[in-house]
Amino acid sequence: MFKHILAAIDGSEHSTKAAKVAIELARTYGSDLTLLHVTRKLDLPDQLKEYLKAEHLTREDLPALDEATKRIIEDVRIKAEAQGLKRVRTIFREGKPARSIVDYARSASIDAIVIGSRGLSDFESALLGSVSHKVASLAGCTVMIVK
Amino acid sequence: MFKHILAAIDGSEHSTKAAKVAIELARTYGSDLTLLHVTRKLDLPDQLKEYLKAEHLTREDLPALDEATKRIIEDVRIKAEAQGLKRVRTIFREGKPARSIVDYARSASIDAIVIGSRGLSDFESALLGSVSHKVASLAGCTVMIVK
Repeated sequence: MFKHILAAIDGSEHSTKAAKVAIELARTYGSDLTLLHVTRKLDLPDQLKEYLKAEHLTREDLPALDEATKRIIEDVRIKAEAQGLKRVRTIFREGKPARSIVDYARSASIDAIVIGSRGLSDFESALLGSVSHKVASLAGCTVMIVK
Repeated sequence: MFKHILAAIDGSEHSTKAAKVAIELARTYGSDLTLLHVTRKLDLPDQLKEYLKAEHLTREDLPALDEATKRIIEDVRIKAEAQGLKRVRTIFREGKPARSIVDYARSASIDAIVIGSRGLSDFESALLGSVSHKVASLAGCTVMIVK
């Protein structure tokens, strides 16, 4: 059903759940799987904050931040391959997350984007929007928002 | 991965695509499948408009409208069962679509809601919101928006 699945990963707990769902779908349907991370400076996910804290780094310390993110995505890739997926790739982009995810999906002919929900409250979500909702609005393909 | 999948069906082309995806997922994962339609008066889907026109009816003619909707959902149910699904049920509700879908999903312990995108333009979507985005915001479970 899905030839090429994109999992958008920001290092947060929600995106780890989304990655699991994406791996399971890709396994089921024999899909290619691309793991995409978009670097931005705002809203560091908790796992990255913890990493930075543990390493006595600040959010200004961007090379270290990239390293932490890459490590999380590498873990997902290893898990995906351990579950038998043969065509897994990791992609890193810089920019506005929703726009970058949608643009990449379009350029790579993705069938389905799997993305974690940030779990914003209705109020926050109405006010700020969330990456997942922007992706769902802008994407030309099916979007699965994992909670 | 999904024990109980809910397909939200409004009779539109997008919801027919969503129903297909929901059937495929339910087949793959051996899930229960519930087909839910929420009746509202605004925004008649094209298929229903065509039905009404063909039958020389107006949108005021609500018993006929319900009949048309039920026929579309019955078609989906027959397709699902023809594909080997054993636990398919159809549910009809009246009310605000997004809220009714989310409330039903919560009450029935749904794992994943599959819903069509209305394909609104970014501008319209920002202005009006869409049922699928409201469902994605409010639902406690995974939401797949099919385009």
